[in-house]
Amino acid sequence: KINGDRLWASLMELAKIGATEKGGVKRLALTDLDKQGRDLVVGWAREAGLSITIDQIGNVFMRRDGANNALPPVMTGSHIDTQPTGGKFDGNYGVLAGLEVVRTLNDLNIKTEAPIEVAFWTNEEGSRFVPVMMGSGVFCGAFSLETAYAAKDVDGKTVGEELERIGYKGPQVPGDHPIGAYFETHIEQGPVLEDADKVIGVVPAVMGLSWYDCVVAGMEAHAGPTPMGLRKDALQVATKIMQEVVAIANRYPPYGRGTVGMVQVFPNSRNVIPGEVKFSIDLRNVNDELLNTMHEEMLAFIDQTRSESGLKIEIERVSYYPPCPFHPECVDAVRNATAKLGYSTMDVVSGAGHDAIYAARLAPSGMIFVPCKDGISHNEIEDAKAEHLEAGCNVLLHAMLERARV
Amino acid sequence: KINGDRLWASLMELAKIGATEKGGVKRLALTDLDKQGRDLVVGWAREAGLSITIDQIGNVFMRRDGANNALPPVMTGSHIDTQPTGGKFDGNYGVLAGLEVVRTLNDLNIKTEAPIEVAFWTNEEGSRFVPVMMGSGVFCGAFSLETAYAAKDVDGKTVGEELERIGYKGPQVPGDHPIGAYFETHIEQGPVLEDADKVIGVVPAVMGLSWYDCVVAGMEAHAGPTPMGLRKDALQVATKIMQEVVAIANRYPPYGRGTVGMVQVFPNSRNVIPGEVKFSIDLRNVNDELLNTMHEEMLAFIDQTRSESGLKIEIERVSYYPPCPFHPECVDAVRNATAKLGYSTMDVVSGAGHDAIYAARLAPSGMIFVPCKDGISHNEIEDAKAEHLEAGCNVLLHAMLERARV
Ligand SMILES: NC(=O)NCCC(=O)O
Ligand SMILES: NC(=O)NCCC(=O)O
Repeated sequence: KINGDRLWASLMELAKIGATEKGGVKRLALTDLDKQGRDLVVGWAREAGLSITIDQIGNVFMRRDGANNALPPVMTGSHIDTQPTGGKFDGNYGVLAGLEVVRTLNDLNIKTEAPIEVAFWTNEEGSRFVPVMMGSGVFCGAFSLETAYAAKDVDGKTVGEELERIGYKGPQVPGDHPIGAYFETHIEQGPVLEDADKVIGVVPAVMGLSWYDCVVAGMEAHAGPTPMGLRKDALQVATKIMQEVVAIANRYPPYGRGTVGMVQVFPNSRNVIPGEVKFSIDLRNVNDELLNTMHEEMLAFIDQTRSESGLKIEIERVSYYPPCPFHPECVDAVRNATAKLGYSTMDVVSGAGHDAIYAARLAPSGMIFVPCKDGISHNEIEDAKAEHLEAGCNVLLHAMLERARV
Repeated sequence: KINGDRLWASLMELAKIGATEKGGVKRLALTDLDKQGRDLVVGWAREAGLSITIDQIGNVFMRRDGANNALPPVMTGSHIDTQPTGGKFDGNYGVLAGLEVVRTLNDLNIKTEAPIEVAFWTNEEGSRFVPVMMGSGVFCGAFSLETAYAAKDVDGKTVGEELERIGYKGPQVPGDHPIGAYFETHIEQGPVLEDADKVIGVVPAVMGLSWYDCVVAGMEAHAGPTPMGLRKDALQVATKIMQEVVAIANRYPPYGRGTVGMVQVFPNSRNVIPGEVKFSIDLRNVNDELLNTMHEEMLAFIDQTRSESGLKIEIERVSYYPPCPFHPECVDAVRNATAKLGYSTMDVVSGAGHDAIYAARLAPSGMIFVPCKDGISHNEIEDAKAEHLEAGCNVLLHAMLERARV
């Protein structure tokens, strides 16, 4: 069993870097604070006797040799960058749980057959630089190093420059690094475990995700003198689509998700009929066929709304991540470890993207969820219980040992 | 008949002050540009032999003596301040049409029984300083001079300071000024006349207007991991109310109006379920009983939505102007003048508030509408035809002469 107190102490220590007044953490990717966080974790890894490799996109791999170093390593990891209003656990837990596994193996003098590696991936959050999950995305070849280097923050600084500046542009070619299996522990970021009062979420898959931008163009006009029948009210048409986004998700339970999170109204004046409304659409489901059906139903509804309203409606897909089922052997390794340890458990499909979906393109992968308070993350009030974090880390230890063999 | 070319030339001359690149005018109340506009109009009035009175809120009265100066003047007027993206005609037309009436009377050497006055009222638009229709509002006692003086722009400058700075804080006590009858010519600011291909709108009344702020509070959460059934999506609840605002207006034709013009979503992020949505509601109708029914139906719908959704919904009325029927004698004066001149005509209820609704609290009042292109105003592309402006001014001349007697 791992040392829960040591894990908690490390989490609290790392959370001091970029700590906010409200108890959260603001440590955006490739800032000075990110560098401090990286240095702290790398220092801990060296103390634990791990060797460090850094690749050209700044992913860091911390390795504990096995008995047979020709075997590809069993890897765990996550990220230590945070949202602007981030918490102490999102990402950080996955990295420090990996470090705690290594410390425990050291304490118990356990030699694994395959090497063990703990990774942290660059810029998972995508807050400062888009796209999200940048380091793992480059690593698995989802997009190029050049694309990632060129990404700019709001001040025009690029990923390439900032990596160099903080000293984390390494020599290794991303992806030039075998992986035997990959596990990631993470807070759930949703309310399902807490709602069901379970400690461990076995994650069979991550939902697929389609992001869209929609623009409805009408004609702005004065709210008083313009009769109802002569209006081209962009908001009235847009709100019909917003309602339908949720209705579509409700037609494909239990994993259908439909969200409109972002809305801009022009000119946004009290006595002017809106001439244009822009909004985002986020559709998710665990099964690609269902997600595609949701996509088709949304396009059909928009076509129908366009012809009924006579307004111009544009819809563009801006991102797409297919559903990612995890490898049965890794899912079983998590399930077996949980059973052996006697934790209450259920399957929880991940609704959010994680670095594990990119790792899964290269090696058998799996995830372990633990509850977070009220299902809240990406928020300074994000919270999790020490006993749950400890349980998740124990499951990680045993799942990794099953794959790495002693 | 008035001189249409001279009227047009004056409109174009005044429109140079604050002219924008797109052909509009930006001349906000009590700015240096407003002072230049005021000085130009006052200069023209002096050339036409009028005497000038300025009151403490900066309303300007330009007077042509009658045969019997003991009679209260027959007044016309409007405003020369504009929206930030304003046009050449909104307000300005009403003031310069009045000036053209006076010039015509001078040309024709006509002496009226009652004096004639042309007024321009301070800050009708309410863009820089709220409330709207400030000068006429203080004049009729709707709110106090102190309230108006204390109004601040975004830079913290007050109406009192700015009036003094531009030299238009006059000595006369607002309202201490008799009015025999009041007429106001204005572009329609709606599409009704153009749609029906009529030149003159006889305005029997101005709609009543209720403004509200509504806030729906749910709980922000991650768009992926949060199941549909566990959400408190503030936008989904808000959009139901937004749809109902229009449905209510449609139940009370032909004058029911319902508009949501302003929407703010928090935190307004693509993959976060909205935790809070603030929006404005604008309800109008010509009949106070109907407007009140609309108000009650909206409150009932909000109560129902609150209990169905379990979300917190706050609604606050922030402004109310009752419907304003104009005086039958003034409406008839406009109707008679239109008939005598042979212009095509229809009744058009004003959907927008005008200084005339405050003048109507003190004296018999009426309005004359002319078409504006595509019904558009509060926009730099606001446009109107010279022949329509001329026709409206001719109707004004004859309506005023009927009341002032020759
Ligand atoms: N974990 C996480 O928040 N990923 C961002 C992409 C998503 O919305 O799923
Ligand atoms: N004429 C005008 O735009 N008045 C402002 C108040 C309203 O919205 O009616």
